[in-house]
Amino acid sequence: MIRKRKSKIIKEEFQDLGFGAKVAAQKQRLINRDGSFNVERTGQSFLEKVSPYHYLISISWLKFNSLVFLTYITINLIFASIYMIEGMNGIGTVHTNFIHDFLNSFFFSLQTFTTVGYGRLNPTSDIESMIAGIESLCGLMGFALATGLLYGRFSRPNAKIIYSNNSLIAPYKDITAFEFRIANARENQLIEAEVQILLSMIDKSGKKDATKRVFHNLSLERKMVVFFSLTWTVVHPIGEESPLYGMNEKDLKKADAEFLILFKAFDDTFSQVVHSRSSYKYNEVVWGSKFKSLYLDSPSGVSTIDMKIFHEIEKAEN
Amino acid sequence: MIRKRKSKIIKEEFQDLGFGAKVAAQKQRLINRDGSFNVERTGQSFLEKVSPYHYLISISWLKFNSLVFLTYITINLIFASIYMIEGMNGIGTVHTNFIHDFLNSFFFSLQTFTTVGYGRLNPTSDIESMIAGIESLCGLMGFALATGLLYGRFSRPNAKIIYSNNSLIAPYKDITAFEFRIANARENQLIEAEVQILLSMIDKSGKKDATKRVFHNLSLERKMVVFFSLTWTVVHPIGEESPLYGMNEKDLKKADAEFLILFKAFDDTFSQVVHSRSSYKYNEVVWGSKFKSLYLDSPSGVSTIDMKIFHEIEKAEN
Amino acid sequence: MIRKRKSKIIKEEFQDLGFGAKVAAQKQRLINRDGSFNVERTGQSFLEKVSPYHYLISISWLKFNSLVFLTYITINLIFASIYMIEGMNGIGTVHTNFIHDFLNSFFFSLQTFTTVGYGRLNPTSDIESMIAGIESLCGLMGFALATGLLYGRFSRPNAKIIYSNNSLIAPYKDITAFEFRIANARENQLIEAEVQILLSMIDKSGKKDATKRVFHNLSLERKMVVFFSLTWTVVHPIGEESPLYGMNEKDLKKADAEFLILFKAFDDTFSQVVHSRSSYKYNEVVWGSKFKSLYLDSPSGVSTIDMKIFHEIEKAEN
Amino acid sequence: MIRKRKSKIIKEEFQDLGFGAKVAAQKQRLINRDGSFNVERTGQSFLEKVSPYHYLISISWLKFNSLVFLTYITINLIFASIYMIEGMNGIGTVHTNFIHDFLNSFFFSLQTFTTVGYGRLNPTSDIESMIAGIESLCGLMGFALATGLLYGRFSRPNAKIIYSNNSLIAPYKDITAFEFRIANARENQLIEAEVQILLSMIDKSGKKDATKRVFHNLSLERKMVVFFSLTWTVVHPIGEESPLYGMNEKDLKKADAEFLILFKAFDDTFSQVVHSRSSYKYNEVVWGSKFKSLYLDSPSGVSTIDMKIFHEIEKAEN
Repeated sequence: MIRKRKSKIIKEEFQDLGFGAKVAAQKQRLINRDGSFNVERTGQSFLEKVSPYHYLISISWLKFNSLVFLTYITINLIFASIYMIEGMNGIGTVHTNFIHDFLNSFFFSLQTFTTVGYGRLNPTSDIESMIAGIESLCGLMGFALATGLLYGRFSRPNAKIIYSNNSLIAPYKDITAFEFRIANARENQLIEAEVQILLSMIDKSGKKDATKRVFHNLSLERKMVVFFSLTWTVVHPIGEESPLYGMNEKDLKKADAEFLILFKAFDDTFSQVVHSRSSYKYNEVVWGSKFKSLYLDSPSGVSTIDMKIFHEIEKAEN
Repeated sequence: MIRKRKSKIIKEEFQDLGFGAKVAAQKQRLINRDGSFNVERTGQSFLEKVSPYHYLISISWLKFNSLVFLTYITINLIFASIYMIEGMNGIGTVHTNFIHDFLNSFFFSLQTFTTVGYGRLNPTSDIESMIAGIESLCGLMGFALATGLLYGRFSRPNAKIIYSNNSLIAPYKDITAFEFRIANARENQLIEAEVQILLSMIDKSGKKDATKRVFHNLSLERKMVVFFSLTWTVVHPIGEESPLYGMNEKDLKKADAEFLILFKAFDDTFSQVVHSRSSYKYNEVVWGSKFKSLYLDSPSGVSTIDMKIFHEIEKAEN
Repeated sequence: MIRKRKSKIIKEEFQDLGFGAKVAAQKQRLINRDGSFNVERTGQSFLEKVSPYHYLISISWLKFNSLVFLTYITINLIFASIYMIEGMNGIGTVHTNFIHDFLNSFFFSLQTFTTVGYGRLNPTSDIESMIAGIESLCGLMGFALATGLLYGRFSRPNAKIIYSNNSLIAPYKDITAFEFRIANARENQLIEAEVQILLSMIDKSGKKDATKRVFHNLSLERKMVVFFSLTWTVVHPIGEESPLYGMNEKDLKKADAEFLILFKAFDDTFSQVVHSRSSYKYNEVVWGSKFKSLYLDSPSGVSTIDMKIFHEIEKAEN
Repeated sequence: MIRKRKSKIIKEEFQDLGFGAKVAAQKQRLINRDGSFNVERTGQSFLEKVSPYHYLISISWLKFNSLVFLTYITINLIFASIYMIEGMNGIGTVHTNFIHDFLNSFFFSLQTFTTVGYGRLNPTSDIESMIAGIESLCGLMGFALATGLLYGRFSRPNAKIIYSNNSLIAPYKDITAFEFRIANARENQLIEAEVQILLSMIDKSGKKDATKRVFHNLSLERKMVVFFSLTWTVVHPIGEESPLYGMNEKDLKKADAEFLILFKAFDDTFSQVVHSRSSYKYNEVVWGSKFKSLYLDSPSGVSTIDMKIFHEIEKAEN
């Protein structure tokens, strides 16, 4: 799927990569740093766009737990109200004032919904027994649902690829190269990792005054690694065939250049293919620097890297 | 898997695509709009055809919840009857009349099945204790089952592809083209989306009077998009090599033409390959129109489309 | 993966297909009708060979439910014994005789393990409260485990391919062909179904007196169908290049012929690749017959087949 | 993905296989016997490196169960303390001394958290009822979580490939070969199993005094088996093209030779691709021996192997 082509413009048919001609022609970021697409849609309700399951497994733990707690309280307030309306004649408590009654009603509801059922508060009238039976069914189904959601949240593919804050254009061997560094942030064993870099630039040389965005597939020194256990510095050598050949910082800016990064690997731990995306805009490219070495001396014979200096760069001595 | 062939008839061996010669020769729809196959089978019981799990995760939420509720009531009625037959000597309630006894028996069953166990009603005789022990086991296994089903319902691949109500045959650049529009209805990030169009037509030119259905693989302007985030107008240019070249509306009808659409993509959110199918019969093709533009002005620099006008078409100015 | 090669002997390196030279040389069935391999291993304990999870999701529902029930009873008998040994001083029941005490102990255990906790029997002494706390933890973990197992049992790939009881060698068009019929027994939508037939025969023409088994990849009239919704008659035309060319029933028997069938498809309903295998020994091949047609007249315009006559064959008129 | 190349040095771009030039140049094991990479990273916290889910499904059952038990006790101690601080005025027990109060508080907490709720101890004051309501929610969510973890632990791809303790270099047919034996330790049906051997050696012939590690892809007699039901002896014939040609034991040691083994198959039982890795260092290669035959006489017609002698080797008679 990821082909090595020597920096030709991608064939006509892939030209806008699916963003649509209108989007591609604009001066905007196509892919955000976190890999999401920089697009929006209107005219659909929230529920049409997002499946509730997808929403509930994607939100943060704080949000998720708050939602669970609020739903729990709300449902119990509703049932408490129902018991109040019904009269609370058979809950096994003495009527005093409204607040106390409502609290007892609420506590009875809590004890029913969670099926803890201590028994001091318990339904004696037929109608209350029936409502309580429905409430405990709701409770159990609710927790069945929570179980599924918790598992869904946990079992999502969780490979995490870190991209260096900046990409570099710097001397490399005899020529110059475009580089960035990625790391496997988890202990998951990723194998057969592949990277593809698409360079998107606005081409004003075209006929008419239309700005047109063109996409170049950058050739890589190495486009696949068998084992991606630690880090990988992805290198595009800027040879004569590279679309970057002869360009300087200002040219990149004028072309509104964006480097789209596509990563793909097989997560051996979860037996799943994982994808990751990121992008570097022209202003996230540092010229003339190189990455600091991550490798520590390892007298033990085990290769060790220090993730604290993953993003650090230093002047390239030339 | 999806190959680009310039509108040749699909090789002999794929000729009926798996529908069987008899089905393919008939004047009928092969694939329904929702992507299901227009076939039926008899001679198998319902249970042989459909696995219960598959059935229970496919039905609507209303149906599913009703089924859960009915099952819950039914099981508890059964256990209530057992307690009645047994005599209800040890449930901890005073015998009054049959209805009251049965209700108490039913409520005791509810409180046992859901493991809420308030305790006012509780088994004191040995046989009732034993039955209650079995019932609470049933209850817990039942809710274990419900948990699995709920998770199964939620975690199914849920990409949703919308196909435009009509496909179009209209002027396109210098020639004419067959077009339809698809949208990614969910916020799932779909990548490497591919489309294949198979045109099925009845060929009466053959020897004998046998009607024979032939399948053509239509060549596409673009058969794959790297990112399918919003919409995609799939275009088959009707060049000289197209089987549609020179045909008009009546010809399509006479040939009982059906455009089979096959869609495939990788759902990045759930790490799953997703497939979708649809079809356009000759009477769902509109001639001489084009789709309205979906893109809104986006001063924010974020591309925005309006899904409300997804299906809308307008006269193509020529 | 499944290649079309015109009935050549499979390349040396695939020659025993993984069965090992010793197995392949023997006169025995290689693959059973149900698709399992006809091999056995000793020297490993049951637990080494089978993962408990795999075992528990593979056994029949009767076996599974019995196991659940027996485990439930056993665990509660164990806890009942512990309460008895402890003295049952704080369970809230009057000491009478041993049997009655043990039953009360057992019922208390049931009510604790299932967390139903009515409360008539309840722990008052510290040690019993502690044991009960551990038991209810065990109960909840046990049911958590049951939930996982139930889901595992349900969510396994459940495509079901039926193979015709017999394969046929019969006149076909102008020549003769080897045929069998497969059906998609479920309503799952299978797409891109592929079949491969390997013919295994003992070759005694070799040097020495060693019997050697050779494998032939039989060429198929059609090796893939795009949609496998109902049935498919897989046909190997016995042309001059076929290893079956010129053979009769006795030759097949002498060669201990076995037709290994490999099936592979994509289950659209569960987004999973499904595999299926079967085999026909020489004595399961019927000569000179053909399959009865399955298709019913379908005035409704929906193709209908009758699965009741799936296995039926009739004399081929020549 | 696994290509057969006649023992050429792997192309420049794969040269360090993803270990990084620094790691590859060192005298160390690259892959451990169990298939993990022999690398380490610092500068990341434990939580960054390992997702909690991944950790909890990877640890041993003893560790997992201990963790569950400790968490259970800890949470209940916390809630018991909260009830103590609150005063325990409404738990339905008589105040005696601190220890007894705390125990009652703890038991009440246990009975609430597990939702067993006998009822002798039950909250009567409003604040205690509220705390108990929160605790039983925590309990249910906790067990929902445990359910997900238990399922996650069970449902991981569980194919298990055993590698022979030693690999061999011994006479084979007319030449010499490098061999090792693998077995499918589970009853899972593995199909389309592939093996790739990478020989890593330090090359000191290079310019300068830099030690450089080179990787060779060893050609295999058979690199794929269709059915991997029992065992497979993987054989690399040491022909003239092999990098091992003409080498002896001392040469291997001097070159710090390591044979990296990559295994890949499709697990038919779980519909999953499974990967496995291992490696043999030069000192794990036995010269001049062969593996004992595993096959037992099988009068029943079922091939039987004896796993007890899987690792056993014997002098190769020449």
